[in-house]
Formats: sequence, C-alpha cells, structure tokens
Amino acid sequence: MTSIVKFSLVAGVIATTGILTTGEAKAAVSTEAAFVFNTFSFLVHGVLVMLMAAGFAMLESGLVRAKNTAAICLKNIALYSLAGLMFYIVGYSLMYTGVDKGWIGSFEFLYNPAPTELTLLNADDANEAAANAAVLKDSAYASMSDWFFQMVFVATAASIVSGTLAERIKVWPFLIFVVVLTGIIYPIQGSWVWGAGWLSEMGFSDFAGSTLVHSTGGWAALAGAIVLGARKGKFGPNGQVNPMPGANLPLATLGTFILWFGWFGFNGGSQLALGSAADATAIAIVYVNTNLAAAAGVVVAMVMTQLMFKKMDLTLCLNGAIGGLVAITAGPDLQQHAWAIVIGGIGGALVVIAVPLVDKMKIDDVVGAISAHLVCGIWGTLAVGIFGSGSLVTQFIGIGAIGAFVFLTSLVLWLILKATIGIRVDEEEEMSGLDTSELGMEAYPEFGRGSQML
Amino acid sequence: MTSIVKFSLVAGVIATTGILTTGEAKAAVSTEAAFVFNTFSFLVHGVLVMLMAAGFAMLESGLVRAKNTAAICLKNIALYSLAGLMFYIVGYSLMYTGVDKGWIGSFEFLYNPAPTELTLLNADDANEAAANAAVLKDSAYASMSDWFFQMVFVATAASIVSGTLAERIKVWPFLIFVVVLTGIIYPIQGSWVWGAGWLSEMGFSDFAGSTLVHSTGGWAALAGAIVLGARKGKFGPNGQVNPMPGANLPLATLGTFILWFGWFGFNGGSQLALGSAADATAIAIVYVNTNLAAAAGVVVAMVMTQLMFKKMDLTLCLNGAIGGLVAITAGPDLQQHAWAIVIGGIGGALVVIAVPLVDKMKIDDVVGAISAHLVCGIWGTLAVGIFGSGSLVTQFIGIGAIGAFVFLTSLVLWLILKATIGIRVDEEEEMSGLDTSELGMEAYPEFGRGSQML
Amino acid sequence: MTSIVKFSLVAGVIATTGILTTGEAKAAVSTEAAFVFNTFSFLVHGVLVMLMAAGFAMLESGLVRAKNTAAICLKNIALYSLAGLMFYIVGYSLMYTGVDKGWIGSFEFLYNPAPTELTLLNADDANEAAANAAVLKDSAYASMSDWFFQMVFVATAASIVSGTLAERIKVWPFLIFVVVLTGIIYPIQGSWVWGAGWLSEMGFSDFAGSTLVHSTGGWAALAGAIVLGARKGKFGPNGQVNPMPGANLPLATLGTFILWFGWFGFNGGSQLALGSAADATAIAIVYVNTNLAAAAGVVVAMVMTQLMFKKMDLTLCLNGAIGGLVAITAGPDLQQHAWAIVIGGIGGALVVIAVPLVDKMKIDDVVGAISAHLVCGIWGTLAVGIFGSGSLVTQFIGIGAIGAFVFLTSLVLWLILKATIGIRVDEEEEMSGLDTSELGMEAYPEFGRGSQML
Repeated sequence: MTSIVKFSLVAGVIATTGILTTGEAKAAVSTEAAFVFNTFSFLVHGVLVMLMAAGFAMLESGLVRAKNTAAICLKNIALYSLAGLMFYIVGYSLMYTGVDKGWIGSFEFLYNPAPTELTLLNADDANEAAANAAVLKDSAYASMSDWFFQMVFVATAASIVSGTLAERIKVWPFLIFVVVLTGIIYPIQGSWVWGAGWLSEMGFSDFAGSTLVHSTGGWAALAGAIVLGARKGKFGPNGQVNPMPGANLPLATLGTFILWFGWFGFNGGSQLALGSAADATAIAIVYVNTNLAAAAGVVVAMVMTQLMFKKMDLTLCLNGAIGGLVAITAGPDLQQHAWAIVIGGIGGALVVIAVPLVDKMKIDDVVGAISAHLVCGIWGTLAVGIFGSGSLVTQFIGIGAIGAFVFLTSLVLWLILKATIGIRVDEEEEMSGLDTSELGMEAYPEFGRGSQML
Repeated sequence: MTSIVKFSLVAGVIATTGILTTGEAKAAVSTEAAFVFNTFSFLVHGVLVMLMAAGFAMLESGLVRAKNTAAICLKNIALYSLAGLMFYIVGYSLMYTGVDKGWIGSFEFLYNPAPTELTLLNADDANEAAANAAVLKDSAYASMSDWFFQMVFVATAASIVSGTLAERIKVWPFLIFVVVLTGIIYPIQGSWVWGAGWLSEMGFSDFAGSTLVHSTGGWAALAGAIVLGARKGKFGPNGQVNPMPGANLPLATLGTFILWFGWFGFNGGSQLALGSAADATAIAIVYVNTNLAAAAGVVVAMVMTQLMFKKMDLTLCLNGAIGGLVAITAGPDLQQHAWAIVIGGIGGALVVIAVPLVDKMKIDDVVGAISAHLVCGIWGTLAVGIFGSGSLVTQFIGIGAIGAFVFLTSLVLWLILKATIGIRVDEEEEMSGLDTSELGMEAYPEFGRGSQML
Repeated sequence: MTSIVKFSLVAGVIATTGILTTGEAKAAVSTEAAFVFNTFSFLVHGVLVMLMAAGFAMLESGLVRAKNTAAICLKNIALYSLAGLMFYIVGYSLMYTGVDKGWIGSFEFLYNPAPTELTLLNADDANEAAANAAVLKDSAYASMSDWFFQMVFVATAASIVSGTLAERIKVWPFLIFVVVLTGIIYPIQGSWVWGAGWLSEMGFSDFAGSTLVHSTGGWAALAGAIVLGARKGKFGPNGQVNPMPGANLPLATLGTFILWFGWFGFNGGSQLALGSAADATAIAIVYVNTNLAAAAGVVVAMVMTQLMFKKMDLTLCLNGAIGGLVAITAGPDLQQHAWAIVIGGIGGALVVIAVPLVDKMKIDDVVGAISAHLVCGIWGTLAVGIFGSGSLVTQFIGIGAIGAFVFLTSLVLWLILKATIGIRVDEEEEMSGLDTSELGMEAYPEFGRGSQML
C-alpha cells in the first residue's frame, strides 16, 4: 500500500504544482503513463498468479493416488471459480472498502468499475480530456485491475486447503467451505492488514501474504484435517505411518514449477505499482529474492533428505521450493539478497522437519500443505521482524490474531458441516476412490492396476 | 479497431497541434510511449494466446484414449506450425490488407515489417529522429506485433477442429485442411469484420471472436465430423451412445486451466491498445469479465450435472469453463460485471445441454468442441445484441453469413479430400489406434492395458 | 548490448541538453518511462524463460522411461535452483563485471542492487528527486532485472545437459557438474561476448545465445555422454541401435510447447531494451522470426520423417521445433521474415539427420539434446554470417573458441568426477531404474508394468 500512496503524492505534485522544470518533466513518467504501468503490472502479475491454480491442481493431482485424481481436479477448478465469484459478490468490499483502521469492511455487493472510469470509457471527444483527468485524479490504476490481482490471491488461499483434505472429503461440503472462506473469512482477516485495518495501523508487515494468504490457507486446512480425520490406513495401530505415494510425480513437479513461475506475479505484483524507476527497481529486487529463496529451499531439502534418509526425496524437495517461496513472501523486498537465501533455506528445512512431525501428530495432510504454507508462512512473517523493518512483537501479534481468527472460524464451520450434511465419504467409497464414488469416472481408466488395487 | 482509431486521433492532436498546456502534457502518455505500450500489449497478450496451443494439446490428449494420444499431440504442434506459416505467406494480407468494406483482402505474399520501421531500425544517428517520427506518424504500434497477435488467433481456430475429429482422421488430410482453413477460409471471413469489410460496415460486433474464431473453428469441425463419420462403436444400433472415456483427465484439466490463462490474452489483447488510461481501464474490465464468465460456466455445469446425473462430471465442468469463456468473447467489454456471470453461466448450461444433443444427432465430437465453441460462440455473439451495444438483427446476419461461408467451404473441402486421398484410417487401424498406424509409436508404452485393450 | 548503449546516448541527450522542443518532447518516451519499460521487459521476458525450466523437465520426463522419471524431475528442479544460486554467488560478476575486452570478469561475490538504487528506495521525500536522477543517470534499467534475465539463461544451458545424460548418471555428481558449469564455465565463455570481452571486440554476433547458451549446453552434454558411456543395451553388438521409447509423450509435447512459449522471452528479451519505438519494433520482429523458425522446423521434420520412415515421428517433430528455435536464436532480428523460415527449416532438417548420426557414433543422447542444441546452435551462429550482418570467419572463430573451451573444461571435469566419486550408477541400479536406486521412490507407482519390466 505504501508505494501506491507515495506514488500518488509524487505524481500529484508533478501534475498540480508544476514544480519541475521542462527538462525534468521530460525525464519523469507522466501521470497517465504511470496509471498504465500500474494497471498493466496488476494484470500481468495477476495472470501469472492465476496460473498458480493450475500449479496447485497439478501438484495435488500428482500427489494423490490415481483413484482420487479426477476429484481433486474438479475441486481445484471449482474452488478457483467459486473464489472469483465470491470475491466479486462480497469479498472485495469486505476486505478493501471502508475498513478505516477497523476489523471489517463494508457489505457492499457486486464490485464494479469506478464511476469516473465508466464516464471516461463512454465519453465523446468533447469531454474526453476532462473525463481522463478525473480518472487520473481519482486513482493511480484501473480499479478492476486491482480487483483482479486481489482475486487471484484469495483463490490461492483456497487452493491450499484442497490438497491437505484430499482423498476422503466429499466435494460439495468442501465447496461450501470454500464459499465461506473466500467470501467472508479471508476478506475479514485481509481487511485488518491490506484493507488498512487495525493490524496495519499497528505496523504489522506482510508484503505479499505469508500470513494473510498462506498461513490463512494453512490454518483452514489444519482445522479441516482435525475435524475430518486421517485417511483409513494412514496411521497404524502402533504409531506407524503408512506411506501412500502419489500417482504421478512428473505432474507434481510441473505443478511446483508453475507455482514458482506464478510466484513472481504474487510477490512482484504486490509492489502494487510500476510507474516509477523506484517501483521498477523494487520489483526487480523482489523477483530476485523470490527466486533465491525458492532455490535455497530446494537445495536445503535435498541435502537434508540425503543426510536423514540416505536418499533424496523428490516430494520433499518440491515442497522445499514451496516452503522457500512461502517464507520469502512476507518480505521479498529485502535489500541484501543473501538474506533471501537464508530465509528460503530455513523454509526448506522447516518443511523437511514439519512433514514427519505433522504425521506424528496423526494429522493427515496429503500433500504437505500445512508444513509448506502454515509453518513456513509463520516463519516468513517472523523473518520480517528479524531481517526487515518490522517489529517482532507486532509480527507475533498479527500471526496470533489472524491464526486464531481463521483457525477458530474454520473449525466451527467444519464442525457445522460435519454435523449437518457430513463431510466425509464412507469407508467403502474411500477404498474405491473418490473418482468413482463422487464423480462416477476414472482419471486414468486405461492405466494399470487402477482404483481396485490401492 | 475503434480504440486504435480513437487513440491515434487523440495522440495525433497532442503531437501535432500542441493544444495542451505544459502542465497537461506532463500528465499525458507521449506518442512514443503509447506506441511501446500498444506493441507490448500485442506481444504479451499474444504470447499468452500462443500457450493456448499447449492448452488444446493437453485438453485433447487427456480426452482421447491412450492409443490415439501421440497422434493428437502431433496434430496439435503441426497445426500451430502450419497456421503460423500460412498466415505469414498469405493469410494476414487476405484478412487485413485493402479489404475496404468488401469481401476479401489482397493476395499479397509474405507479410513483412513496414518500410518506415526498417528505415528506423537501420537509421544512423543523424536521421534517427526523422525516422522515428515517420514510424509514429505511420502507426500506433509495431506492424509485426499486430501480425503476431492475429496469428495466434488463427491457430486457435484450427486447434478447435483437431479435437472433434480425433481418433479416426488421418494426419495428412487433416493438415491439408488446416492449410486451407488458416490460409484462406479463416482470413476471408475475418476480413469481413476485423479487416473492416462489409460486416463491420453493417455494425456487426465481435470483440475478440466468439464468431470469427470459435464458431469458425466449430463450423469447420462440424463439417468434418459429418463427412468423416463417427468412431466405430460410438453409436450402437439401438441409438445408444457408448462412452469412450479419455485416458488422462489431469492433463485435460491442465489444458483447460492453460486455455483460461491464455484467454486473458485473447480477450484483453483484443482491446488492441494499451497506451492510455482509457485503454488500460478497458483491458482491466475485460480481464474481470473473462474470469467471471468462465467461473460461472464451471459452477453452472457443476450444479446441472449434479442435478441431472446425481454426480458431477469433470469433463463437462471443464467444458463449462470453455463454454463460459467462448460466450464472453464477443463482448468482454461489458461495463456491468454481473452480466458476464449471466452470459458465462448460460454458456456453461449450453455445453451441458448440447453435448448429449450432438450425440443424439450421431455427430461424434470427441472432446465436445462443437458444443463449447460453436454453440457458445453463437450465444456469445447474440449476447452482444442483448446486453451490449450491438443490434440483434445484425448479429444474426453476421452469425449466418460467417456460418454459411465457413460450413460450406469446409464441407466442400472435406468432401474433396475424402474423394481423393481419403480422410479416414481403415477399421483395423482405428481399432489398434492412430499412434501405431499413423506414427508407429505409443504415447504411453509402459502404462497398463495399452492399445490392445480398448 | 548495442541497443542499450544507443538508447542511453539518445536518452542522455534528451535529458541533459534539452535539444528537443516542447512539442517533440511530448512525443518521446521520457528517460524514466524508458527505465521502467526496459526493466519490465527484462522481468516479463525473464519469467517466460524461467518457465523453460518446466519445459525441459516435462520434455525429459516424457522421453525417459518410467523408472527414471522421478530422478529426472529432481535433477531439473535441482539444476535450476543451483544455477540461480551460483549465478548470484559468483557467476554474474565473472560474466559481466570488468571484462573489458578480456577473457574473464572479476571474482566478486554476491551480486546485489546498485548503490544508487538502494539510495532511491530508502530516500525520504526531500532527497527523492535527486536519488531518482542519480539512478536514471547510472543505468537504463534496474540492475537486478538484468541479473534475473541473465540468470534464467544460465539455467537453460544446464537444463540441456540433464536430458542427454539421463537414465544412468548419479544425481550428486551431475549436480556438482552443474555447480561448476553455471558458476564458472558458462560465465567465462559468456564474458567473451555478452560481457564485452575479446570475441565481442572481434565482432562475433550471437543475439540470444545459439552458441553461448545452446551450444555451450550441448558441448557440456557431449563431453558427459562420452565419459559416461551409453545406457546398457542401447547399442547392440552388431551396431544395431535399440530404441528405448519415452514413457509419456504428451508430457514431452507439453514440454516442447512450454519451451516454444518461453523462447519468446529468450529471444525477445535479448533486445535488452523496450523503451523506444525502435526497440518495441525490433522485439516484434524477433517474436515473428522466432515463431516462423520453430514452425518451419516442425514442418520440415514432419515431411522428412514421413519420407524417410514412411511415418511421421512425434519425437523428432518436437525436436524439430527446438532445432528451429535454437537455429534462429543467434539472429532473430532478421528484417526479412522469409529467411527465418529457411534458417528454422534447416534446423529441423539437421535434427532429423543428426539424431541417427549421433546414435551411429555410439553416443547415447537420451532426448536428442546434442542434435537440437549443439548442432543447430552451430548452424544458427553460422547463419548470422550468411543471412545477417556478421562475418562468417568471425562466427567460425567464436564457435570454435567457445566449443573448445566448454568441451575441454567439461571433459576434464567429468573425468575428475568419474575418477573420484564416480558418475554412473551400477548395472543393477540402472536396470531397476534411478528412481528406486537414487531416490527410493517411483514416479508412477500405480501405472502398469512399472520399473520391473523395461
């Protein structure tokens, strides 16, 4: 947010007071060009984040067993769709409109383009110049480009949940949860920070959403995993953990690369502006930190799994990349890139440590999302207090407040869903797989042992 | 087209008459910056559309049976290649050069950069400023950026055909059809609207090609499906329709997500300009409508298949997304986003209704492309007459004229191909699969039952 | 490089001497807007190239057998990670800092943002204008955006190696090779041309890296293949070549499409600037040549394999696209697009010819990377001397010097690795597959015959 405000001030000064001489004016970005740059940054970076929906779908498709693959595909395209609709219907307003240092925005429905923008688009030649000036005075970017960028973030939060709860949750209750998460829960906690609410007022710092997006998705997933219970056979009677390997690891690898690709949009676009040399420079720094943190997460996971298990583990290395990315998300604007390697490397280590710990707690997280998104989201948010400009105490308060709110509301919602329509397929359906029980189809009808065997 | 013309006028006024005061000048986008913005918009949006070729390849790879997968992969990379070559050799000129309210452009071969552009690129320091001014006077964007953007559109139309005709068409006759479609048929009908031909003159409105691209592909596919006939065993003697499920549904899901991703380029880039606040604002609106329409298509397909079949159908939900996207393509510039939900939702519904209807007519469309692209393309074009600024009568005329032209020329071409070199593999080859008969290879040589069994 | 220098001069003249009248000033791109354009071009094009890592991973996953798929996935994400870390730690400085017509840059560690940039980012309102001016005077783009763009290039070179050596190389020795390749070998040869070293001084021309990236990767792969030896059973006692077909051809097709997509960033971004009409025009031309060359490579491979084998070969057609792309990479700025078709078509032909020749030399290249990247890289570099502005003699010198340096240093490194820690799995591990021996997992645990059978 800061950068937008700063930009507006500077541009406003240039446009209204004319303090620059002609020579300097030629060197600067015009107000309208900055508007175009800012808008295009939201759109281009937003479309990169949009593809993360495909990344999650492939990651999860690769990590579930064949008999549950079509169901996870359906959940992923459905949740992306519902997130977009809910954020249009009510979410964006709840998160960004009239929060004013408070706890929630306004219940205004159907977020549409700004009136000045519509006036400009419908202007005839005579009043076009005036309409243009009104738009530029109103905002530093097109209103719907910001909506688009924020919408793909809420979809990301929902994507995190589907992986953890795969292979035993019914489709429709899951989708009802998504509707509430993306329309109500996510926007309310988001308003506290990015909507300029009370946590932002306190100085809580979360550049692109280690807490607001990734931990939020992780808390919702954790609550769901507790209420839903583990897959049959995952945890043996004597504490043993039975591996249930994913059916298609190249798809999981593809999904991880797509997530990494989309993350440049996620973090880079969160600069929220591109219309000045300072903003462009800042975004370049964000890209580099993002890449270094992910790379460090992979390398640390490689080394640790080699040392711990004597063999590298592909799945943990993929999650190491994600852990590194989640960890750097709260503070990718670090001005010393070596710290990004440290932060991302610790993220990778936390994933390798947390995945077996979560298992030990008999919490069944099919794809490791709680470890990668919740644990590393907390770490990344704290890291801003250590390496960045934030206060550690405030960072703790924000993590705690958002965690408590999201976890408790999610828990209540899961319990209500469980008590009413039920959230879990029955045992026989689970054994035969969700694809046949929920969708009546197979994801890979011609390949091998198929759903009967595992 | 409108936006480009409008832009040029405004920019021209700024550059030549100097009517703005210095203070206002600093606020506006310079002519050259607008040139860069417009060009970059064509390139970035074009490259998103280019990836749709991969989207179609994956969607179709996922929805055919394993034994026909390598062949559909080959067809997809071949058709994208041929489309690009043909559009360079003759297509672009036929579509965009000298149409002048008429029925066809000019047969000029090998479309190359504008002479003023080459002069600028080869200018030395002394004449660079004059060469630069000449380019800016000539056009509001680099000529080849527009070529690139339009080229990926013609490839999209060709991609639609391959899915419908999969699993029984010979590769080479299909590719000959693609050569004529992309070099002649598509450019001629395209010239009527986007080349400023007679239909454009009448006021026919198709922002990004519900009719010009998607219905055109759909009509060509329909003609092919009729001439080619159904796959052996698809339709039983007593009217039953035998399902032939796709071999790899996560790939189909990935393909749909990639198409959705590329569609932001498809519709967003069709604003044809980015060099002003008005254009940037318009593109942002287009992105949002595109996303909402697709989301609505998915949700409607989910609900309808749940109600109709008691289980959700992943394949129809994926096609629901595509139906919603096709439907909004004629008018993604709607200024009230709720209408995008309505238009896209109806698109999703039409897919769910049309797929079994097409089956009932014993037309064998392997991936549902006729339902998603032709039916929803017609709907989306009519929707502009209902919700947008177009006239319903003119929209009907355009749909009819383009439909008749494309369907009839395609039909004749398919019949000629059938009568001469033949278009269909023989029955034994069809049973063993096109991969072995046409390519001598298997797509998944190690996986399961393989080509012998289905 | 040229374009950046030219740009800076022009912009500098505008900014400092004020020779333009007010009317002209309004037409031109401001210095700061050009800075933003240039930076954003590096970032957007760089992120496209980044996705090529996924393209290589999918291409190679599709072309190896199922039992080696998880290992190739791990190698691909690991090499991308290590390349980024090494290029940050030392590679970029070795390649771009203080080369000064020489043979190597400086050993400065940890490349970080320019001091003027940090001053700007930390400026308060009072000194922001001065800090901004200092940044614009310093450079035409953000320093880390160039780092990001160059980093994804070094990763590409490393990706080429993994495919050739698949299915029998141990993971860790391979990764040690990657560390040296990306941290030392690649940067040194790169400094000779793009770092403004001795070859650049001679006039050697390689726009986006046919030699610097693709042949470099190819030479390193060739040296490795010689030292490593062929897979067991690949070459029979009587000279026969036993096909070992890839397990998942749609993934290989997807990988090729993603590479094609990323190549627009690879070649387009290598214009190194976007901040003027001339640069935007040049990039548009690059995009078109890139697409036409790839398309021609596919079509030539289709026709040749049909004529030579009576059936088209999907794998060779995919490699035909890559061959066309590699071939145009040294000179995608050709001003007559028809030559791109010729250059790319010859690239496709060379792949079809070279793949069996490499086999005949008993060099086992699992994915055909030596043919596509090394052979076509040489061809493309020579083509600049034939169709472009370069001198054929100089091009030969550059190809020879870089080839000798990379091949010999790689050979020595592979021999050292072989003599010390060993580079090859033992025979039994090779039969059971690298996934179980190196990673202890299967890529497709549920699909069909699995690792026991092939």
